[in-house]
Amino acid sequence: MWFVENQNNVFSLGISIKDTIIEEQSEFQKITLYNTHYFGKLLTLDDLVMLSEKDEFVYHEMICHMPLISHPNPQKVLVVGGGDGGSIREVLKHPEVTEAVLCEIDERVVRICQEYMPSVAGKLSDPKVKLNFEDGFKFLNSFNQYFDVILTDSSDPIGPGENLFKEDYYKLIKKALKPDGIMVSQSETPWFYQETMSSMTESMCKIFKNVETYTAFIPLYPSGFWTFTAASDHCSLKKFDQNRSKKLAESCRYYNPEIHQAALALPNFVKKMVNNQ
Amino acid sequence: MWFVENQNNVFSLGISIKDTIIEEQSEFQKITLYNTHYFGKLLTLDDLVMLSEKDEFVYHEMICHMPLISHPNPQKVLVVGGGDGGSIREVLKHPEVTEAVLCEIDERVVRICQEYMPSVAGKLSDPKVKLNFEDGFKFLNSFNQYFDVILTDSSDPIGPGENLFKEDYYKLIKKALKPDGIMVSQSETPWFYQETMSSMTESMCKIFKNVETYTAFIPLYPSGFWTFTAASDHCSLKKFDQNRSKKLAESCRYYNPEIHQAALALPNFVKKMVNNQ
Repeated sequence: MWFVENQNNVFSLGISIKDTIIEEQSEFQKITLYNTHYFGKLLTLDDLVMLSEKDEFVYHEMICHMPLISHPNPQKVLVVGGGDGGSIREVLKHPEVTEAVLCEIDERVVRICQEYMPSVAGKLSDPKVKLNFEDGFKFLNSFNQYFDVILTDSSDPIGPGENLFKEDYYKLIKKALKPDGIMVSQSETPWFYQETMSSMTESMCKIFKNVETYTAFIPLYPSGFWTFTAASDHCSLKKFDQNRSKKLAESCRYYNPEIHQAALALPNFVKKMVNNQ
Repeated sequence: MWFVENQNNVFSLGISIKDTIIEEQSEFQKITLYNTHYFGKLLTLDDLVMLSEKDEFVYHEMICHMPLISHPNPQKVLVVGGGDGGSIREVLKHPEVTEAVLCEIDERVVRICQEYMPSVAGKLSDPKVKLNFEDGFKFLNSFNQYFDVILTDSSDPIGPGENLFKEDYYKLIKKALKPDGIMVSQSETPWFYQETMSSMTESMCKIFKNVETYTAFIPLYPSGFWTFTAASDHCSLKKFDQNRSKKLAESCRYYNPEIHQAALALPNFVKKMVNNQ
């Protein structure tokens, strides 16, 4: 049995499945959890791959550590989306963090991951963590200059995640961030989402001074070439504390100081997509 | 209609196909050329993806420019395999090159690519290029300290390419290289070929002083995370001429000086696989 994710009807990615653990329609989306032959458990939302136990460390380390290490003192961190808990797990590796807030619209995603993927979701019960099951827009709107870092760990720009790729959302983030804060959003792949990448970057550049795209190898996302985009008025991913980075890397499987710097190098064809940076 | 490449029965990659241009059994392998909906023409050998017109620039720029820019004067360059001609096209971008030799075991691959993919194979008729349709082992054995750079642009370590991943092959390369020469081999993905990567590196370290693994995003290879391994007694990919690199990048779609340096950064889990470097 195979789970197959079809990309615009031109490309597909298949993962061989042992069995289906859960398949349910929540208020927001179809949630499916599989046992796979190679990748451990696999979570899909509306039949799109979110993560597998085997490869999730790449995405979660990279969405989290690049901005947190580039912020001088990341105490209050918000993760929008990220119901699987992997981003929160990585956030908590930073000793500076006093408050790790999750805002996930779909409580069922969190509960399923807590029950079936403790290696990913286990840290959601840490006393520093606050769980909120709300729409990211509404939640953000109640904060003014509160967070040091905001990570948008969203699904693709279709379905419940659609609005998280638009200018109004980045304005809300700016308001909820302290003036020296930094945000990161996952920003899809340059092979199939050129327009999303270009429009996200353009929108962020209207609102923040420094907008920086970086990359990671994610084997179960289409093309394997994934990007994240950071934005800040004061921080830059290029300026980071080597000592903190090195110490953090001891607990990482992907991230290290060389990777931190390397992830910021963009191939020429990607530079063109985000050339207003 | 889909072309589907199945990886160890645990992972698969599908590309939607308009039609099949050629399907033939050569003396060595099954050669198929498709028209795809998104990736231009697609070449497969024994039903494994070799390249598409849309993404081939990544592989060919990265196998070629990293070693050539790191060699002070790459005049004589040998490509073993690489019958599609893409590596030779990139080799010829270097003004230092006086002789670009291709040794491809299967003449039919070359002839089909020349006829149907001129954007890839067109430079094979350049006067600096010498074509040889021979076994790489036999061909290399006739050279002593002749080449500045040897690129092994092989298929996977199954079928006709199998011997190109073994110690005896690297010994032959060493003999055919000038003492200050450098070699590069494509070295598969850390997600599915951990043992190949480890054993290749181990073998090369017995024969060369500097062994360096580097990475590139190749969307149509399994996982998208591809590696190459370079070996030399005198050159190092870390020491390269920024000016030459910058000038070369003007004619590239992937490679540039930042990418050159970034490609050498390895995630922690990959460092472990090649830890005898």
